[in-house]
Amino acid sequence: MNFISDNTAGASPNVMAAITAANDGSASAYGADLWTQDAESRFAEIFEHEVAVFLVTSGTAANALALASITRPWGAVLTHEESHVADDECGAPEFFSDGAKLIGLPGAGNKISPDLVMQTLARFREGALHQVQPQALSITQATECGTIYSLDEIGALKAAAAPRGLTLHMDGARFANALVTLGCTPAEMTWKAGIDVLSFGGTKNGAWAAEAVIFFDPARAGEMKWRRKRAGQTLSKGRLIGAQFEGLLADGHWLDLARHANAMAARLASAIEASSQARLAWPCQANEVFPIMSAALQDRLRAAGVGFLPWSDRALPAGATLAQGEIVGRFVMSFATPQAQVEQLIALIGA
Amino acid sequence: MNFISDNTAGASPNVMAAITAANDGSASAYGADLWTQDAESRFAEIFEHEVAVFLVTSGTAANALALASITRPWGAVLTHEESHVADDECGAPEFFSDGAKLIGLPGAGNKISPDLVMQTLARFREGALHQVQPQALSITQATECGTIYSLDEIGALKAAAAPRGLTLHMDGARFANALVTLGCTPAEMTWKAGIDVLSFGGTKNGAWAAEAVIFFDPARAGEMKWRRKRAGQTLSKGRLIGAQFEGLLADGHWLDLARHANAMAARLASAIEASSQARLAWPCQANEVFPIMSAALQDRLRAAGVGFLPWSDRALPAGATLAQGEIVGRFVMSFATPQAQVEQLIALIGA
Amino acid sequence: MNFISDNTAGASPNVMAAITAANDGSASAYGADLWTQDAESRFAEIFEHEVAVFLVTSGTAANALALASITRPWGAVLTHEESHVADDECGAPEFFSDGAKLIGLPGAGNKISPDLVMQTLARFREGALHQVQPQALSITQATECGTIYSLDEIGALKAAAAPRGLTLHMDGARFANALVTLGCTPAEMTWKAGIDVLSFGGTKNGAWAAEAVIFFDPARAGEMKWRRKRAGQTLSKGRLIGAQFEGLLADGHWLDLARHANAMAARLASAIEASSQARLAWPCQANEVFPIMSAALQDRLRAAGVGFLPWSDRALPAGATLAQGEIVGRFVMSFATPQAQVEQLIALIGA
Amino acid sequence: MNFISDNTAGASPNVMAAITAANDGSASAYGADLWTQDAESRFAEIFEHEVAVFLVTSGTAANALALASITRPWGAVLTHEESHVADDECGAPEFFSDGAKLIGLPGAGNKISPDLVMQTLARFREGALHQVQPQALSITQATECGTIYSLDEIGALKAAAAPRGLTLHMDGARFANALVTLGCTPAEMTWKAGIDVLSFGGTKNGAWAAEAVIFFDPARAGEMKWRRKRAGQTLSKGRLIGAQFEGLLADGHWLDLARHANAMAARLASAIEASSQARLAWPCQANEVFPIMSAALQDRLRAAGVGFLPWSDRALPAGATLAQGEIVGRFVMSFATPQAQVEQLIALIGA
Repeated sequence: MNFISDNTAGASPNVMAAITAANDGSASAYGADLWTQDAESRFAEIFEHEVAVFLVTSGTAANALALASITRPWGAVLTHEESHVADDECGAPEFFSDGAKLIGLPGAGNKISPDLVMQTLARFREGALHQVQPQALSITQATECGTIYSLDEIGALKAAAAPRGLTLHMDGARFANALVTLGCTPAEMTWKAGIDVLSFGGTKNGAWAAEAVIFFDPARAGEMKWRRKRAGQTLSKGRLIGAQFEGLLADGHWLDLARHANAMAARLASAIEASSQARLAWPCQANEVFPIMSAALQDRLRAAGVGFLPWSDRALPAGATLAQGEIVGRFVMSFATPQAQVEQLIALIGA
Repeated sequence: MNFISDNTAGASPNVMAAITAANDGSASAYGADLWTQDAESRFAEIFEHEVAVFLVTSGTAANALALASITRPWGAVLTHEESHVADDECGAPEFFSDGAKLIGLPGAGNKISPDLVMQTLARFREGALHQVQPQALSITQATECGTIYSLDEIGALKAAAAPRGLTLHMDGARFANALVTLGCTPAEMTWKAGIDVLSFGGTKNGAWAAEAVIFFDPARAGEMKWRRKRAGQTLSKGRLIGAQFEGLLADGHWLDLARHANAMAARLASAIEASSQARLAWPCQANEVFPIMSAALQDRLRAAGVGFLPWSDRALPAGATLAQGEIVGRFVMSFATPQAQVEQLIALIGA
Repeated sequence: MNFISDNTAGASPNVMAAITAANDGSASAYGADLWTQDAESRFAEIFEHEVAVFLVTSGTAANALALASITRPWGAVLTHEESHVADDECGAPEFFSDGAKLIGLPGAGNKISPDLVMQTLARFREGALHQVQPQALSITQATECGTIYSLDEIGALKAAAAPRGLTLHMDGARFANALVTLGCTPAEMTWKAGIDVLSFGGTKNGAWAAEAVIFFDPARAGEMKWRRKRAGQTLSKGRLIGAQFEGLLADGHWLDLARHANAMAARLASAIEASSQARLAWPCQANEVFPIMSAALQDRLRAAGVGFLPWSDRALPAGATLAQGEIVGRFVMSFATPQAQVEQLIALIGA
Repeated sequence: MNFISDNTAGASPNVMAAITAANDGSASAYGADLWTQDAESRFAEIFEHEVAVFLVTSGTAANALALASITRPWGAVLTHEESHVADDECGAPEFFSDGAKLIGLPGAGNKISPDLVMQTLARFREGALHQVQPQALSITQATECGTIYSLDEIGALKAAAAPRGLTLHMDGARFANALVTLGCTPAEMTWKAGIDVLSFGGTKNGAWAAEAVIFFDPARAGEMKWRRKRAGQTLSKGRLIGAQFEGLLADGHWLDLARHANAMAARLASAIEASSQARLAWPCQANEVFPIMSAALQDRLRAAGVGFLPWSDRALPAGATLAQGEIVGRFVMSFATPQAQVEQLIALIGA
């Protein structure tokens, strides 16, 4: 049983079928193919907005390209101190942006508060010479702790960041998981709430390797084609990514996949809440579950061959503490997680 | 009929089958999967040498990562002035290497001569402060003009470059096409001839998006894992690339694919040589054919819906010239080019 | 009365005399002159150690070049969150290092604790793929709060950083001020305590624009000449910097200058300690004084034309707080600060 | 006798006097001082135009900052293949611009022709994805061969570059030398002829270390303050550079210094033209003389202790060749070159 990540699964059958179907005849290279154009149209429909879309093969590339396009080399990006861009991409945003600085903010459940954004901005005088210039705010939806920003919370962050002209980026590696929880429209969770640029995640959702950088103001995307090309992310056989998105996006398949993953997580979370063997570090709002586990429980699961990761406890809610031997564990559900495995895991955890 | 490039085809059925087969169950992420490990083993076998292998999704990424790993930011890479790294990657090598310089050398048929390498090196005093430091030599095999370096020619370049300690890189986007023409072993065309680092091309050969950076001295690859990660080229579902290589490399399929492409090119080339309608700009040695075409012939083919590219004439052999209205055209054959289309094209060209 | 910074003074008369004396006849360019060589020899003497010395014109350049030479682009530098390299150089270390990350640590009086270094290192697994790799630790001596690391404290930081192989850098923009307070030798405050690379500050000490990057292991400095050249920091008329250092370093002049600045600061600090009008935010250990000032006192000084800066209160000692209207003020003494001005300031502050 | 470069001299007495005079009292740091402001005003007067001025300490920094501010990382700068920016700055423009490409064009006397500019631009399709985008043209006035572009030639280059929107940069390390030869106004040699950004050289003219990046459209300079700061080129005691320019620019001193240097060069050049011992590689139009010298003459001068450099012969006029043993030598005159030394050199060369 492998709950290590939602990237240990392969691709959804629909995605495989779309790739197979796309593998017929010749097509224009470098993203000028029909599948890519189809994906671009679908995104415009899904977001009910004109968009500039750039398909790439990895979330790291999507995030780093997005941030580089909205931050100057002497600029700064405010983000959670444990966000993926800050802590899991080996400096890719710094590389792609030619040296911009990521300023990590603390916050329970990996969520940033508008107050802290404003306090941080106050430390950087506008136009001052000696300090880097805050130019963007990047949030993750759903976060790396499986929590979710409400629409109001996103709006409040926008309001905190807008007076200084910050561009708002959303790392949507688990965009679909957040969306189906909120039950809102993609437009509501993005541009209507103030998001300017989105990394739309297909890979964890059920694709092989398909991510999209989406600009809600296409005028800001003018240089992106060169950035992407120069980063080696402009696939020659671009339909490979276009087709994956076609497989995902057609008929709301992406939402179905996310609903399944979330349901599996909710099942596990409620079992843990009902159990005396563990408690949740953060509420389960997407497809990830973070139980605080005793050493005994850890041992029991490891012995049973259950794959999970120990996780950082830096973003525990105020007042929460770990007892001796306890850790935070991470269990991630994907589109492919069989319910039977979840039940088996629940049984192993025990009441 | 589309002869625009060998990247307008999709993937070979074997590659598709391998991806489909790999899409089963969970696998470790970020290249720790069995398919990637299998690809690495196959490369060691194919090259009869210990190798460090790094799978990526694009040739630009492979080349740029390779050059960055063998050149310091104040270093220089000698290469043909029309090589892919110099002229078709929008500055990716400069980006990945943090600003190293590519020094473009002229040469007929896009081939560099050892003499010019030595003359160029003489202009850069070793250890001098004011000039960049030549640290690598990059050649393309087969070249962008469809020509091929013989083993002796590669050896002579190595001999020219070695006294200054240059590392030898081969851009093998069309490695297989060159190999089957030379009829030598992969080892002979690489490390035995002096190549230190290879960009092994799978995409044009018949994969969707699969390239490998191969170090013949694994000790030089120590930092590559961070470079690749930070460039957004470490796929989370890494088996997607591993499986493509499995499909290509098993049972010599990659060589069969290249043989077909080369045969199609040879067929066209010999028809052109026998025709009075066009003549070859360079000998056809791989899967590309470059006829010098009159305006009338261009019009005839365009009218018939034949896709091809006009090509640069900078690397014409000494003395060769274009008459008024003539251009060099490029026709590229892939694993998927149907012989019937080649015959149809030959008929259109006429005798 | 200007107490804004120690860089609002000009140069010491000895420095001016040395420049004037150096302005005679022709000299080899780019640092091959006798004055530069003399400075290099003096540093070897002063530090009682073989050193590789690189003269530059600004502290930002010195620090950024030093950090770039000991950190890879995917590396990280641990430093205080309010250190000059982290907060006052507009991202120069990120620029020069091609994107390395500075990890800012909190700490009272802008001093880093070994415990926090170790805790931070524990968050970055050695050799892990996804996170940047901590490779250097940078401390400022004297700090931006006018405090000083004792030799034992430096040694303890070295002990905390060494097991992970971190290189220890000291930003010595106010090196002399710290040194005369500690009363130790330059060797004791650097390589004997574990410092590997030093930014030796001449400018604030009494030069116009003279800083030196000093490697205590010259073998690590092999690439620095190209880094410095390529950064535009290799002056053609290099004797301008060499002569400044000659003026400073001859006959212990640099130490005399620092002693004066420190004495002026001590005089002000003791008056404040004896006064009921203000209290010290941090102990005065070098040439800077940081009184916590009421609004009334601020107004009184501003009205009298006293130049000083409001300062960050992030690094106040645990438990210290500012009352309503209070700020931390910064008063910096230089080699040129007249004692009469200090007395005048003390009178303005009042008892 | 040292004719190696115009940077082997120190500073003009007026410059020294200005520095000494500036060393009095306290001044605002980081370029907010009166001397810097004075220099800025003088430049506006000299160029009869509103200007944005950024003082720095080296020509390499001035050029690299200028080019970085007018070229994107995927952009390209057309320049002569032997220009200082292309060949003598160890990749500084690539570093400061985060990887832009310098495209070196051949041309006799290190001058670029409009025809070659247009031919080169034709090789880069506007907006094309795969190639870098030409965005700037950089010329050196006077060139590295001591030749000069006429106003018409500059205008013709502007006309060739403008249709593609290229920004025109002039490396004016020897601006004054060119100006006094042309006998035109600074305005005529710059913005009136189409120059957008100028590196104004003070160092070779008679300063210690004083260069200025001058934008004739201040609106283009908005980001330059951060670029300069982050490059470590914003001196804290900025009056050091401001005062040097005050010493140079007051009362046309800079032009007097250039006239002397040029006169010394003209004297040597005419003697060589009249001699049978050597001939000129290029016409002497500024302060440099490039005789083609036999081995015997070289030996004679070396034996007499005459310092000069061997120089590249790549830019010899069409048809010019070197006989066996001949080299091009470079003899540079500065403001400080004594006429007696020139006469002594002429005598050594002989009739």
